[in-house]
Amino acid sequence: MQTCVGKTNSHKTFFFKCTSCNQSYETPLPSFIIEELPKLVDVEPYKLRRSFENGNIKFYNNHGIKALQFRKSVGNIEAGSMICFGDKIEIIRGFPKIRRTLMLYPSLKIHFKDEVAVEEKMNGYNVRIALINSKIIAFTRGGFICPYTTKKAPEIMDMSAFFIDHPELVICGEMVGSENPYVTHSYREIGKLGFRIFDLREKGSNKALSVKDKIKLLESYNLPRVNFFGLLKIDEAPERILELIHQLGNEDREGVVIKDPAMIIEPIKYTSSQAHNGELEYAFTYPFDFGRAFFFSRVIREGFQAYELNETEDEISSRAHKLGESILFPMINTIKEIAKDNHASEDILIHADDLKEAENFARHLRDLGVVATVHSFNEGKAIIRREHQSTSDRISNFLRGGLY
Amino acid sequence: MQTCVGKTNSHKTFFFKCTSCNQSYETPLPSFIIEELPKLVDVEPYKLRRSFENGNIKFYNNHGIKALQFRKSVGNIEAGSMICFGDKIEIIRGFPKIRRTLMLYPSLKIHFKDEVAVEEKMNGYNVRIALINSKIIAFTRGGFICPYTTKKAPEIMDMSAFFIDHPELVICGEMVGSENPYVTHSYREIGKLGFRIFDLREKGSNKALSVKDKIKLLESYNLPRVNFFGLLKIDEAPERILELIHQLGNEDREGVVIKDPAMIIEPIKYTSSQAHNGELEYAFTYPFDFGRAFFFSRVIREGFQAYELNETEDEISSRAHKLGESILFPMINTIKEIAKDNHASEDILIHADDLKEAENFARHLRDLGVVATVHSFNEGKAIIRREHQSTSDRISNFLRGGLY
Repeated sequence: MQTCVGKTNSHKTFFFKCTSCNQSYETPLPSFIIEELPKLVDVEPYKLRRSFENGNIKFYNNHGIKALQFRKSVGNIEAGSMICFGDKIEIIRGFPKIRRTLMLYPSLKIHFKDEVAVEEKMNGYNVRIALINSKIIAFTRGGFICPYTTKKAPEIMDMSAFFIDHPELVICGEMVGSENPYVTHSYREIGKLGFRIFDLREKGSNKALSVKDKIKLLESYNLPRVNFFGLLKIDEAPERILELIHQLGNEDREGVVIKDPAMIIEPIKYTSSQAHNGELEYAFTYPFDFGRAFFFSRVIREGFQAYELNETEDEISSRAHKLGESILFPMINTIKEIAKDNHASEDILIHADDLKEAENFARHLRDLGVVATVHSFNEGKAIIRREHQSTSDRISNFLRGGLY
Repeated sequence: MQTCVGKTNSHKTFFFKCTSCNQSYETPLPSFIIEELPKLVDVEPYKLRRSFENGNIKFYNNHGIKALQFRKSVGNIEAGSMICFGDKIEIIRGFPKIRRTLMLYPSLKIHFKDEVAVEEKMNGYNVRIALINSKIIAFTRGGFICPYTTKKAPEIMDMSAFFIDHPELVICGEMVGSENPYVTHSYREIGKLGFRIFDLREKGSNKALSVKDKIKLLESYNLPRVNFFGLLKIDEAPERILELIHQLGNEDREGVVIKDPAMIIEPIKYTSSQAHNGELEYAFTYPFDFGRAFFFSRVIREGFQAYELNETEDEISSRAHKLGESILFPMINTIKEIAKDNHASEDILIHADDLKEAENFARHLRDLGVVATVHSFNEGKAIIRREHQSTSDRISNFLRGGLY
């Protein structure tokens, strides 16, 4: 094992520190980084070198794919981008971060032109699927190959005809449903596991097809897409979207992504109060793992939503009460569980052919930094137990009288 | 203006960077840091040098006092410590951080011996008052001389006889009341401005007098002390303190500090739900200045308090609702104010002899990093306006349609 310990001292060498013996040594920068990479992406060579030295660009070799993985964005290349080596070099760009509006009324008018396309934002996990070395491969948001999604997505939808005709496209979508290993949420029309496509993008450039072309193409290959709520004139859009968010929230659905129909201007997202509270409930079930990071922006969203809706005192009270409940109820439950000597852990159900496949998936989760082990395997179903260690450790310490 | 740009290259020089011309130059470390300081404090010399180089120990010259100020703790020397130069060197140690218990029942038994002394924790600002060069000087928690407290404290209580007899002691207490420039809170028995002493500590060593000796000494000089709720046997303490916290909370008072009667073991604090909510209300009046930092620990305290009190579902609901209200109500009010083109600002009332004194205090606040200006001065009363710039800027940006 090696970790990089410092900046380069010349443009052709950099330092590594051996994590076992702690010795530093100098090693040449791989020639691919210096010579090939600048020809593939439009980023200044010194930035690419520096990112590699800092560990933000890493070589990746897993699930049969060798690649260069962008752990953080560099220039205009998004985090999660993968430069895959094989028969030829394929560049799968990271999925662009979608910014959020807190106030629909002014922001849509400023940001978009005459019309917007409104699609449902679903609560699952973002996946990019592409053809690499003639195989269909699914990448997580961070650019890791997900063995589970790579196996399951083709079972859910048949992409073979699509990829034969369009090997240059990347399918961007959400894996959703009540039985998935990352983000579980119940959708009546989906059930255990489903996939909904929101973008088709070109390899290399990351250029997205227009909303119309995307829908047409997906329908012609019978591929499932997220709900499309129509094209709205910019003047009527805020009001219509607020109504829509109200309905979606009541059905416990997350929200919308608002798009330039031509997909030239970047999309914007907007979400329901129920989604904010749902995320807070999850975060405060494991407060010392997620509470701090999740809290602030969701509270801010609630404040602006109440303001834009011009809510009455009673409506604001009700919103405040739900907010408080979403934070305190799950936290107190977790304290009670840990007081009974339980752990703060989450059981994830996946379908696997054998124990080895389940172990393989647990290893993939650990690569992502998650503490996970196979808890049981029985008749094609594996339970992966995910531990939220900070929550277990800190709560049990306080319960034993530890000071804050 | 200079800022330190790097570590020392030898033990006798370090680098400064001129903030106007951006040039780096070498300058010798002051001999006081190398030669005198290690004789005054029990800290390894290299740590003192490094702290000075990093700007964590700084020379201070203000309000007629020259000193060395510890901006951060170094070894066993607390942040806020001041080594004052004058007729002789006087070391005013920083006030030690008091840790918090989340669970009275196990923690008191683990932390203390047979008995604890319980005193009221008041909601004001922590001040140390000491005799420096024969003058009574008040220091803020961070070690800054507060010109207002230095002037006001002697008007509130006569410390002259005490300091004639005990020039080696430091008075540690809380400036409280509805009209003070830092933390305003109404106490019926105090009114506009008052002082309550909680510790007497020795200069240099920071050793605190026992609770009994402190009370005796303060009473003999007629100096005001915080409420003393008595000595409690360790077995009965948690229950009694929970009752006390309930009463204090109902009177909108903050909480208690639990002490070893001999003041050998460090004290612990515990606070009421009303105090947590009060602080959240303040923080979410200025969410982008304080919300993120204030939020998490107060929510955690609420969770453990509900658990330790074994609250019913209704009690937990009521606690959750108050929590949500403390966050959302003030934030929505501030959004409304900023939508009306107002600023997120706070008006601070101080008493001053003339405009110059008010300006002097505003400058002191700016030294502490607060954006403050004199808004008006009239008949001995000055209004200092404190701006919460991040809140104003970010909320008005979102209201104009800025993306999150």
